[in-house]
Amino acid sequence: MNAIAQDAASQLEAAARAARAAAGQVARAPRPVKDLALRTAAAALRARQDALLAANAADLAAATGLTAAYTDRLTLTPARVEAMAQGLEEVAALEDPVGRVLAEWQRPNGLVMRRVAQPLGVIGMIFESRPNVTADAAALCLKSGNAVILRGGRESLHSAGAIHACIAEGLRAAGLPEAAVQVAQTADRAFVGAMLKAAGLIDLIIPRGGKGLVTRVQEESRVPVLAHAEGLCHTYVHTAADPAMARSVLANAKMRRTGVCGATETLLIDAACAPTLLPLLVADLAALGCGFRADARARAICPELPAAAEADFATEWLDSMLSVAVVDGVDSALDHIRRFGSEHTEAIITEDATAAAAFLNGLDSAVGMWNASTQFCDGGEFGFGAEIGIATGRLHARGPVGLEQLCTYRYHVLGTGQTRP
Amino acid sequence: MNAIAQDAASQLEAAARAARAAAGQVARAPRPVKDLALRTAAAALRARQDALLAANAADLAAATGLTAAYTDRLTLTPARVEAMAQGLEEVAALEDPVGRVLAEWQRPNGLVMRRVAQPLGVIGMIFESRPNVTADAAALCLKSGNAVILRGGRESLHSAGAIHACIAEGLRAAGLPEAAVQVAQTADRAFVGAMLKAAGLIDLIIPRGGKGLVTRVQEESRVPVLAHAEGLCHTYVHTAADPAMARSVLANAKMRRTGVCGATETLLIDAACAPTLLPLLVADLAALGCGFRADARARAICPELPAAAEADFATEWLDSMLSVAVVDGVDSALDHIRRFGSEHTEAIITEDATAAAAFLNGLDSAVGMWNASTQFCDGGEFGFGAEIGIATGRLHARGPVGLEQLCTYRYHVLGTGQTRP
Repeated sequence: MNAIAQDAASQLEAAARAARAAAGQVARAPRPVKDLALRTAAAALRARQDALLAANAADLAAATGLTAAYTDRLTLTPARVEAMAQGLEEVAALEDPVGRVLAEWQRPNGLVMRRVAQPLGVIGMIFESRPNVTADAAALCLKSGNAVILRGGRESLHSAGAIHACIAEGLRAAGLPEAAVQVAQTADRAFVGAMLKAAGLIDLIIPRGGKGLVTRVQEESRVPVLAHAEGLCHTYVHTAADPAMARSVLANAKMRRTGVCGATETLLIDAACAPTLLPLLVADLAALGCGFRADARARAICPELPAAAEADFATEWLDSMLSVAVVDGVDSALDHIRRFGSEHTEAIITEDATAAAAFLNGLDSAVGMWNASTQFCDGGEFGFGAEIGIATGRLHARGPVGLEQLCTYRYHVLGTGQTRP
Repeated sequence: MNAIAQDAASQLEAAARAARAAAGQVARAPRPVKDLALRTAAAALRARQDALLAANAADLAAATGLTAAYTDRLTLTPARVEAMAQGLEEVAALEDPVGRVLAEWQRPNGLVMRRVAQPLGVIGMIFESRPNVTADAAALCLKSGNAVILRGGRESLHSAGAIHACIAEGLRAAGLPEAAVQVAQTADRAFVGAMLKAAGLIDLIIPRGGKGLVTRVQEESRVPVLAHAEGLCHTYVHTAADPAMARSVLANAKMRRTGVCGATETLLIDAACAPTLLPLLVADLAALGCGFRADARARAICPELPAAAEADFATEWLDSMLSVAVVDGVDSALDHIRRFGSEHTEAIITEDATAAAAFLNGLDSAVGMWNASTQFCDGGEFGFGAEIGIATGRLHARGPVGLEQLCTYRYHVLGTGQTRP
């Protein structure tokens, strides 16, 4: 290990040990204490708006070579500071997920078994240069009783530090340990490597960002990972689709926002309805500025569409672009999705309940929708109040990750002196 | 990669691809089909008892240098074959965990959100040379709709193969793909290495065995791991314990079976009751053949006890041996447990409900018990019908892992054409 990596490892270890010590206090903090911390932090964000904008200006001045979209995500404005403050207050208003009795039953020997929600412990969150994620993730982790080490992108260090100061003020006001929410104050990439090696010190790594980041984390991490990877989402227009519904839902699923992971990237349409319906769908989307990559059967109906290469069906466009393929019913659609999909979110548009059931039951994806826009795959839309991301793995939590999903459980077994025969 | 490792990697990849293809069919198989497979396999185990015992005799003849306990676990008898067959039938009699609606709610926009239990996919199970685990694990994975690749100890290859033939017969009879349950037919350790690298092909690795095996898997695996690690369980006798209950529960928790992970390894006893109660507890256990390692405060009361080194409190004895320490109330007991415990199972013996609540809420362990033997930490005792082991991590599942814990979930979102604003 070189000196820089050694230094990063030492920094991380100190941070993680402090987080572990703090985690016990946060885990057992009653709801009013956690909510006081969040509301005080919100007030601090508003009170220190000028300092936040100045820190953000320093980040923006130092950043070079960023895309316009990246710069936009990095930029704070008075409205965005207010949105962060409101976000903290919204999390404060959510029910406390800790201590919920998830199940309870009694055994013939009289033992009462109770499954109780409990915080995970110490979470390590790795994300890109989006200052608001610092506030959102801190709030969700704190409310769910976890300690967290936040490692944002190197371009947002000043902004993250200024936001963190507000959260620390909230923790102090509530009598909670400041180490419960820590922000890495280093641009050193070795710090991320140290986080990924910290099995036993960090209980869960949540990577949120581009495919490169998530893949690196999944490959390197010795700590369990709750991955938020790509959303290669499909909307399947079944023969028995209501044409007007198919048009409005697909336009929304593709074009409402193209950069979100729940945006539809591929349209699958049944051969039986494609000749009449596909031209309408294409015209709607083209009018909204969408481009296309279509397979040969789709181009036989709409010859003006550019031809798709096979790789296009494996591409998460995150842009005004749609892959299009003609299929032959539910099984054919499922085959395509299994081959190219990312097990995130897929929708079927149909009036045929049997076809819908076959589609939903045939999917392996985290979320299957019937007659709804894939863009509903969102913690807020699910009613979770807020989310830290969309989990795309199969373990622990799938789909939107809110306060409940940031908890694990334990059992309480209540006896009266039972011994096992 | 050398030739052997290359060969093992090729074997594993072929097995995993076949398992992935089979997983979809098993995941969607209705309960009667799965149960038919299990009952047919049970009948085959009984019908082929002679072949099983002959295969097992070949394993035993080839094995050298095994401990008596290891040889005992490897040995099949007519009674053990019958027990395996009954085990398969018991799993057949359990409710199907797949497709259970875990939660359902409606959003203001009319969307119905439904959380549904779903199999994990392809499970890789790595365990020691215990033939019965082949049958048990196959049954639990099949009933929970998963495909499984079983890799038992190298000493049990013949036995595992003979058991697998019975399970394959069951799968065939039910029209299920044989690749749904596969048994590694190689003693090559590189096969395990290949399993641990098979991210994307295997969804979950379950290691079950000694600390060395589990640690290796946790360190090397690129696939998510549901670890079944050590159980360094504590029984804490609180000042307000009923002495008779403390005596009977501790004797059971330590000595009913000493080799199980739920056996108590350390007694913590409050200073206030130790002078009168500790001598009784020690006498009870000594009469049962238990040895002791005691701290200075315990030895001040029972000078005949051997002195404990600090490392003794970090030792999972799995034997007739008990570490003993005197503590000063609930917080002191919790401090000891956090320092030396393995987050498996801990019990408090007390008549004081407030102290019990403080203890249970202060634990980070998977299972906390009040006035009950730690040996109740078992899937059967929890009412799960059968278990594949006890999970000691914090993600996905904690404590006994039964059919429900071998499932993940997905969402079905039922709409009527909703689009997101």
